[in-house]
Amino acid sequence: MQALREAIMTQGMGLGTDIVKVDMFLNHRIDTALLFDMGKELAERFREDRPDVVLTVEASGIAIAVAAAHALGDVPVVFAKKGATVVQSPDVAQAKVYSFTHKRENVIRVEKKYLPAGSRVLIIDDFLADGQACQGMMALCAQVDCPVVGIGIGIEKGFMPGGKNLRAMGVKLSSLAVVTAIRDGHILLADD
Amino acid sequence: MQALREAIMTQGMGLGTDIVKVDMFLNHRIDTALLFDMGKELAERFREDRPDVVLTVEASGIAIAVAAAHALGDVPVVFAKKGATVVQSPDVAQAKVYSFTHKRENVIRVEKKYLPAGSRVLIIDDFLADGQACQGMMALCAQVDCPVVGIGIGIEKGFMPGGKNLRAMGVKLSSLAVVTAIRDGHILLADD
Repeated sequence: MQALREAIMTQGMGLGTDIVKVDMFLNHRIDTALLFDMGKELAERFREDRPDVVLTVEASGIAIAVAAAHALGDVPVVFAKKGATVVQSPDVAQAKVYSFTHKRENVIRVEKKYLPAGSRVLIIDDFLADGQACQGMMALCAQVDCPVVGIGIGIEKGFMPGGKNLRAMGVKLSSLAVVTAIRDGHILLADD
Repeated sequence: MQALREAIMTQGMGLGTDIVKVDMFLNHRIDTALLFDMGKELAERFREDRPDVVLTVEASGIAIAVAAAHALGDVPVVFAKKGATVVQSPDVAQAKVYSFTHKRENVIRVEKKYLPAGSRVLIIDDFLADGQACQGMMALCAQVDCPVVGIGIGIEKGFMPGGKNLRAMGVKLSSLAVVTAIRDGHILLADD
């Protein structure tokens, strides 16, 4: 997606060999016009998959999920909540997610009634790196018998294994921009 | 706002004397159509105050902030981040916020460069109860010399002191729905 590529190239910062800093337009300050263009583009890519609901995880996934759901004709959004511990409740689906960024294990959870069995789920997130968050959301969907019809991502770190692993599972995955490497502070992007 | 009042009356749950549970349409599952109607209504109420930026705090404020910013002509959104501890950095504005819900003190923070001095800030949040989050965001704005031109809220708990205290400070505060009491599981709302 050209507008996102340009924002990454002109405003994004590469740190070290694996950090893509885009908090000036995506996950601390949000460029609202770009956000809604990203939502529209994700909607175009997944409209044929007829999602009933968009699933994301708090916090920074919420904005792009809402923008995509709006462009899909205002389908509902469910955002999984993060916690440190497993909750004892038969009404809650939950999955463990290891965060490489924060070097700790989190639990993500959703009240089961908000993902009724059979709902066609589109998973949306701002970033894809090791794929743990997406794998966790897929595990939640499996627990409530909801098919995952696709995964839409803002920025994928193509040099990390998340995308490859998810594609190997056969799920339809589409990312608006793919970072192939970070070299000397420069962010290298795959061609569209 | 009539559509929000109806959602609260038909779907919301009152628990005890002070908990308004609306996670079926606002802060776990999001009714996207209602969310964007709320954003439009907030935009109408604050357009005359010419905000340059919408400020909220993660996580559940992000959705309504994005919807309002979109209706205001895609002004940028900045969301303050929550942490347990104060960060030592001259580049970060931060304020302590006591959460009565979770019975603990959090710190909210914003990178100063995302709130340039003089920016006209509209604070948006999904809920107003004791007002600690809004007071914290006002403190952030004061640190970066940004005037707060208004505070727009989804649901205000009118039986808690937050709204009264903020109005006494002279800030323009507008809430889309005001809960006056919870009695026997019923949520009572103020007239529009």
